[in-house]
Amino acid sequence: MRFIIQRDRLVHSVQEVMKAVTSRTTIPILTGIKITAVEDGVTLTGSDSDISIQSFIPIEEEENEIVEIKQSGSIVLNARFFGDIVRKLPMDTVDIEVLNGFQTIIRSGKAEFNLNGLDAEEYPHLPIIEEDQTFKLPADLLKTLIRQTVFAVSTSETRPILTGVNLKVEDDELICIATDSHRLAMRKAKIDNKVVGSYSVVIPGKSLNELSKLLDDTNELIEMVITENQVLFKAKNLLFFSRLLEGNYPDTSRLIPNESKTSITVHSKDFLQAIDRASLLAKEGKNNVVKLTTLVGGVIEVSSNTPEIGKVSEELQAESIEGEELKISFSAKFVMDALKALEGTDITINFTGAMRPFIIRSLHDDTMLQLILPVRTY
Amino acid sequence: MRFIIQRDRLVHSVQEVMKAVTSRTTIPILTGIKITAVEDGVTLTGSDSDISIQSFIPIEEEENEIVEIKQSGSIVLNARFFGDIVRKLPMDTVDIEVLNGFQTIIRSGKAEFNLNGLDAEEYPHLPIIEEDQTFKLPADLLKTLIRQTVFAVSTSETRPILTGVNLKVEDDELICIATDSHRLAMRKAKIDNKVVGSYSVVIPGKSLNELSKLLDDTNELIEMVITENQVLFKAKNLLFFSRLLEGNYPDTSRLIPNESKTSITVHSKDFLQAIDRASLLAKEGKNNVVKLTTLVGGVIEVSSNTPEIGKVSEELQAESIEGEELKISFSAKFVMDALKALEGTDITINFTGAMRPFIIRSLHDDTMLQLILPVRTY
Repeated sequence: MRFIIQRDRLVHSVQEVMKAVTSRTTIPILTGIKITAVEDGVTLTGSDSDISIQSFIPIEEEENEIVEIKQSGSIVLNARFFGDIVRKLPMDTVDIEVLNGFQTIIRSGKAEFNLNGLDAEEYPHLPIIEEDQTFKLPADLLKTLIRQTVFAVSTSETRPILTGVNLKVEDDELICIATDSHRLAMRKAKIDNKVVGSYSVVIPGKSLNELSKLLDDTNELIEMVITENQVLFKAKNLLFFSRLLEGNYPDTSRLIPNESKTSITVHSKDFLQAIDRASLLAKEGKNNVVKLTTLVGGVIEVSSNTPEIGKVSEELQAESIEGEELKISFSAKFVMDALKALEGTDITINFTGAMRPFIIRSLHDDTMLQLILPVRTY
Repeated sequence: MRFIIQRDRLVHSVQEVMKAVTSRTTIPILTGIKITAVEDGVTLTGSDSDISIQSFIPIEEEENEIVEIKQSGSIVLNARFFGDIVRKLPMDTVDIEVLNGFQTIIRSGKAEFNLNGLDAEEYPHLPIIEEDQTFKLPADLLKTLIRQTVFAVSTSETRPILTGVNLKVEDDELICIATDSHRLAMRKAKIDNKVVGSYSVVIPGKSLNELSKLLDDTNELIEMVITENQVLFKAKNLLFFSRLLEGNYPDTSRLIPNESKTSITVHSKDFLQAIDRASLLAKEGKNNVVKLTTLVGGVIEVSSNTPEIGKVSEELQAESIEGEELKISFSAKFVMDALKALEGTDITINFTGAMRPFIIRSLHDDTMLQLILPVRTY
């Protein structure tokens, strides 16, 4: 194998596939990046066996030569060393050559690295995905779907299925749900091309976080392919594979109350900041619990009290308060997470009593829903 | 005590004194910030008993009212909570009032915090500094002196005296020296006002790092006052106290060789980058050792070799090589630290053999010197 490549393109692709590489692997070859040069270009692959990322660098793009392939072939190079080296090379082009054995020479200017490689034949094969059922989403919408749900996945391995986001496709609608059993985030979106049949899979939250970092905020269409135990996201020159979580995702639809006893509409940013302040004196441990009380005249009070530190209270004018009076306590963190995920300037919160889950929605957007369980303090 | 203050000025002063506050203290009251309001303004104090910082906010500045003192007095408030609170308050002004006992009310807009304070009488007194001998340095020069030496202090407590920077004043010259016994950094500077007598004190490296963060890159004159066991730096509205390290600093003058067997002049940035690249494959453990070899034609080779990973070599055209041929090995980190501290574009390195310390100087500036001990590999 030998090719000469533009350094910045190589650096970019190495950074992409590095997101799948971990040094904490029990499979030594997965600490490496697989590099394959063929006639069309160079492919880099990184994997931690849960996530696999493949980045392709074509020999030319918009009539600019990016890679000159001298001899096709493949090699696996230690990801950390290779990444550090290409980032710090002195010139704009890099010459990479595999000698006999797996010795690899990396030349740029007067700097010459001789790196011990590994046999690319030993590198695990990527999952084979049959592409009979695919659908497409713009990259920015996909990033938004992830951002608005993934924060609510469970971080505990007690119920592994809850560490993932449930992704359902029904006709022309995509539904993403995440819950850690104390709160739930849901977001729906229309998909353009109608899908035959329906899917319900669970994608690990970690995979979606990594995917989100790789996607640009553009309307470039990302193709999704779902199989029994893998999902594949295809962008231009980039393939992102993730394993799926096994098991049945709980039916969350019956958790969501239909009725409402108290309904508060409030300016999202003011409410968020008041809760943030009230939580300052409630930070000991993880129970950063704040209390919300409805007062007369459409005013709500946000407060907290930790006797050994002090107490805080703040009054806030709501847009409207309808229904019964209410005193309720909740995790400030959960409500702040939910408010940050909802993009609306005004939000409506529907309560069905101090002991029952409550729902936060954007006033003008019904594609998103955040559900939170209160904390019992009375 | 009660005063109304501009929030941004309070936030700024809290951030300054917070640099001295640590949560890991055995003296509970030192987790707090002492706030004192008198007729002239408000003083905040933070301390970890090694470093003490006092920040003063005058009632007015350039005819703008900053503080309105309603009632003088003092209180100690938990630094973390108080810092978080003032940073997140909703309005531009803050009303702070101590009620009977040590209950403190912090009001801003409709937010009201009630924080448990501590008795300011219990807060340790700051050192009393007699100001018979003082001298002044511009803030930017003081920052440079710190930056060019403090990185070379020892991080090991084996010889505590080496964790500080030796600061000597003789007539109109200030000399800063730091060494961890493997390398040494020295910087001299003229001071304007002549000092009677001579000083030699050792200031903890940690103190200087914190001081450096507080100083602006301006030519504002900073006044230094040295006493037997304390040093005080005085800036506008800011006092910075540090204890001094006890003991005699070693005489380092005899470590610095006068003769030279090989002298290399090279472009600093090219040399730094070549060493950085050579060190990439030598990073295992702390022995990131690289080798320098003089070749014919004024060329130097920088290389390293770690058999299990690979090897790297790079040739570099020196401006000049004078004297004997040389092969020497050294810590890439130490040489890179030294090159970053020296600001010159061209540097001269004087060697007296592969086993002896070598000296790096800026070609056109003799106020700085960096000495490094080589590593024996032959």
